[in-house]
Amino acid sequence: MNDDEKAIRQVVDTWMTASKSGDLATVLSLMTDDVIFTVPGQEPFGKAAFAKASQGMADARIDGTSEILELQLLGDWAFIRNRIEMSATSPGGSVHRSGYTLTLLRKEKDGQWRLARDANLVTTKKEETQDRQ
Amino acid sequence: MNDDEKAIRQVVDTWMTASKSGDLATVLSLMTDDVIFTVPGQEPFGKAAFAKASQGMADARIDGTSEILELQLLGDWAFIRNRIEMSATSPGGSVHRSGYTLTLLRKEKDGQWRLARDANLVTTKKEETQDRQ
Repeated sequence: MNDDEKAIRQVVDTWMTASKSGDLATVLSLMTDDVIFTVPGQEPFGKAAFAKASQGMADARIDGTSEILELQLLGDWAFIRNRIEMSATSPGGSVHRSGYTLTLLRKEKDGQWRLARDANLVTTKKEETQDRQ
Repeated sequence: MNDDEKAIRQVVDTWMTASKSGDLATVLSLMTDDVIFTVPGQEPFGKAAFAKASQGMADARIDGTSEILELQLLGDWAFIRNRIEMSATSPGGSVHRSGYTLTLLRKEKDGQWRLARDANLVTTKKEETQDRQ
């Protein structure tokens, strides 16, 4: 495994750890300023909208795993395919989601790999005592 | 616009034209043998499963548009983000879908760009007299 591959795996690990601990600043530091997230049924959105949505979930406890199924280096870009299992637990109940992502990362001038384009196909698997407020 | 960019735009155009006319052989020729498609709520699938699913829709009339929002060349790879509007009309009714895709293409040894990884976040917008058989 070369240094770029190690660094990309570290980005994925740090992202998941920071998400679990509610460390939004760290998560935001792992995406490029021009990042574009795509999810089903919504318009694509960027870093500011990601931050806002995360703040809206500040009371939820996030848990999960992210498994890298494929990683290919394309120079200063790379792509990964992940399989994600996650749960978000709030006072109203818990939601389980699972599915796949296709993500492009870019190595920026400071040498750091960051998420640049992300297609997230993680969908709700099961809802338990979900309180829709 | 350089030759690679022109060639990739041609792949997208040809894909849509062939889909509309039911020309599955042409669509299949525009993907690599190791292509992986990802859609919400399903396991990722490859070329053989794509062909099978298309044959199951052989009686549907497909119409639609595909607009390239972004195209970046990364050497022998490239990625595009598309916005897709499509409808599938069969004797039972018509289904409209819209949404976005994130697609990686690879330039193969014969010089042809082909779809290699595709995340499709196109979802059902509206169903009209849909007959669920």
